[in-house]
Amino acid sequence: MEANRTGAGLTGLATTAADTRSLTAADVEAARAETPGCATVLHLNNAGAALMPRPVYEAITGHLAREYAIGGYEAKEEAQGRIEGVYGSLARLLGAAPREIAVVENATVAFDLAFHAIPFAPGDVVFTSVAEYASNYLAYLRAREAAGIAIRVVPDDERGQLDVAALERLLAEPGPGGRARLVAVSHVPTQSGLVQPAAAIGAAARRHGALFLLDATQSAGQLPLDVAALGCDLLCSTGRKYLRGPRGVGFLYVREAILDELRPPFIDLHAATWTGPESYELRPDARRFENWEANYAATLGLGAAVDYALDRGLEATWARVRALGARTRAGLAAIPGVTVHDRGATLGGIVGFSVAGWEAEALRGALRARRDRPDGTAGARPINCSVSVASSAILDFAGRGVESWVRASPHYYNSEAEIDEFLGAVAALARR
Amino acid sequence: MEANRTGAGLTGLATTAADTRSLTAADVEAARAETPGCATVLHLNNAGAALMPRPVYEAITGHLAREYAIGGYEAKEEAQGRIEGVYGSLARLLGAAPREIAVVENATVAFDLAFHAIPFAPGDVVFTSVAEYASNYLAYLRAREAAGIAIRVVPDDERGQLDVAALERLLAEPGPGGRARLVAVSHVPTQSGLVQPAAAIGAAARRHGALFLLDATQSAGQLPLDVAALGCDLLCSTGRKYLRGPRGVGFLYVREAILDELRPPFIDLHAATWTGPESYELRPDARRFENWEANYAATLGLGAAVDYALDRGLEATWARVRALGARTRAGLAAIPGVTVHDRGATLGGIVGFSVAGWEAEALRGALRARRDRPDGTAGARPINCSVSVASSAILDFAGRGVESWVRASPHYYNSEAEIDEFLGAVAALARR
Repeated sequence: MEANRTGAGLTGLATTAADTRSLTAADVEAARAETPGCATVLHLNNAGAALMPRPVYEAITGHLAREYAIGGYEAKEEAQGRIEGVYGSLARLLGAAPREIAVVENATVAFDLAFHAIPFAPGDVVFTSVAEYASNYLAYLRAREAAGIAIRVVPDDERGQLDVAALERLLAEPGPGGRARLVAVSHVPTQSGLVQPAAAIGAAARRHGALFLLDATQSAGQLPLDVAALGCDLLCSTGRKYLRGPRGVGFLYVREAILDELRPPFIDLHAATWTGPESYELRPDARRFENWEANYAATLGLGAAVDYALDRGLEATWARVRALGARTRAGLAAIPGVTVHDRGATLGGIVGFSVAGWEAEALRGALRARRDRPDGTAGARPINCSVSVASSAILDFAGRGVESWVRASPHYYNSEAEIDEFLGAVAALARR
Repeated sequence: MEANRTGAGLTGLATTAADTRSLTAADVEAARAETPGCATVLHLNNAGAALMPRPVYEAITGHLAREYAIGGYEAKEEAQGRIEGVYGSLARLLGAAPREIAVVENATVAFDLAFHAIPFAPGDVVFTSVAEYASNYLAYLRAREAAGIAIRVVPDDERGQLDVAALERLLAEPGPGGRARLVAVSHVPTQSGLVQPAAAIGAAARRHGALFLLDATQSAGQLPLDVAALGCDLLCSTGRKYLRGPRGVGFLYVREAILDELRPPFIDLHAATWTGPESYELRPDARRFENWEANYAATLGLGAAVDYALDRGLEATWARVRALGARTRAGLAAIPGVTVHDRGATLGGIVGFSVAGWEAEALRGALRARRDRPDGTAGARPINCSVSVASSAILDFAGRGVESWVRASPHYYNSEAEIDEFLGAVAALARR
């Protein structure tokens, strides 16, 4: 496993033995054994927050124990080398350089810091997707108020993903007085299995001189990411989802070449040096988007999560996530009364579905509250899913005829038996 | 102890038995017994990050254990009532209403969110103090670039605190085309024992129609706070310092009457509801300054820390902090070669000092590295202090003739014997 880490390098996504091989049944068993939560819950809420593996939990609690024993600043000093290592790990995950990484509170904060750092001028056009996440769209609306930008939603193609040809046309003709300034897209939307054609979107943006901000909140840890191949200038993501890290920590990638084009909305004595009553100097790397104080236990947990993901190999885990997603989708579609909502040319681990006669929230509760095993004996583990609501993605929900649906999101450490147990539970509830 | 919590109410700082009595030697011993770090370190870095008491540590690790066992979202659902309780605890601490509280990443983020939410117009004047913290001043410089505000530094009076009479004059005559928009002040600066006359500053701001933003980063948990008595519209603070809470969490108070005057710089689906392609609606309370994702283990730790502080009583612990600060200051001043840098009419727990012949960083390291007890036997606990540098408060350091000094910051759980042991260690180093 160490070989993978060493071989990853800083300039591209590692392609090592760990990345190209498939996960074996023994690999899955080992990952489950390192995940005590697997014994307690049948966890299909990895798109919410995944179950942490032991090394992540121990990185967090180990640091907290030191803060408790010797003080918060003193524990940070002691962990300084490991904290620096987190930047290296994130850089390897993305094919970036450590100086292009900022560790921040979460993906939304990373998105906001990056987006609002762009010096928009009136007439600047921001292009986005139908499947866009509410919080991102709200940032566009906020910038429209503050800076007079225009928002253009690129239509989907017939497969249900962003229509890259339409994006090209819109970028070429942003309208009278308009300038194609930014393409900002959720790589994998919160509410469905869709994986957007991010590399093609990035290439289109680059051709037309627009910046490309990729929201990788649901894709980091789910599929391999390489910022050069994706052509993105800015990328944000979170720890708690497919990376299996802690809550309350995320990260931002800023391509070094555009760093000085951006104006961080907030600056403090970590981001800049106060040099005089009327002057300051920004630090030279992407950490100008951070602020001084952080939850270092969470930072170290994030680093452990990235190392754990790299050790398994993103190609290998992505193949398994896709397979488990497909098994879930096919199994659900075969149950009478079930509708699967996913559309797109490439589908990943997230599955959105409804069951006739069930409100989504009630169905989620019933899956969580079940107490009987498929064989009728008592003591089944709760099934963890979540609910996607229209207000989190109103453009994508429009015309679907539902206001919410249940989201099941397997990860590589879920077993085929768990998927089948989940399908059995849904089938039983659908018959009620 | 429960009586204190119940009697605190929501409209003012509680004045109950726990608040008005003094801490007894037994109270201090009990607090030390609940603070395992006291056995490991002689901790005089409470202005950096205090040692957490057991209930705080257990609130954090208890929640992490549930996230590990059942999933991050599921653990949050389970803790929902206790998370709501944190807002009630913070409201009691400040004499505010729970709907006026936002829990955010840290005090700097709280300050930035509040400050940059003020809809500044060119010519607006922001008044601040000589002792101001770098990160706050950097925010003023950032707003000067973005919105054309002017920054006026109010001089100190002869005692070394902000000159309230001078502030009154400046507020009355903000200059041609100027408008007195905001007074923003660090209640207790990071680098010294000074406690600014915040209530008088607040009254002056109110008289002249300016908003008052109080940075209580170093004062929350050190001394009693009541937002009505202080006359502040906005207050920010952190968990890790005198409140003895976790790192990476802080809070913001927003007076309800000014909520709609402000424009949160960032909005997401927690702060607002996305209602249409061109519209959104902000939530009705101060949580419009939060974002959806948080480190709930830290939030719960913060709540436990506030409850712990309220249970001891802020009047009682403040009396002891002042007394230990004074003992430290007097003891240091009596050592040949030591200079104490604190000035102000009211001094608290923070003590800034230099020792002739010692660089501050080297002195801090020597205090931390010492291995001998005062009686010459081996095995002394490291002494934790920190260093204040000019770049963290350049206006206050100007003319002092030093670029940095050591900061010792006792809290109520430090013993008199610890202060004396620290003084002995400094005296021994000063003789070298």
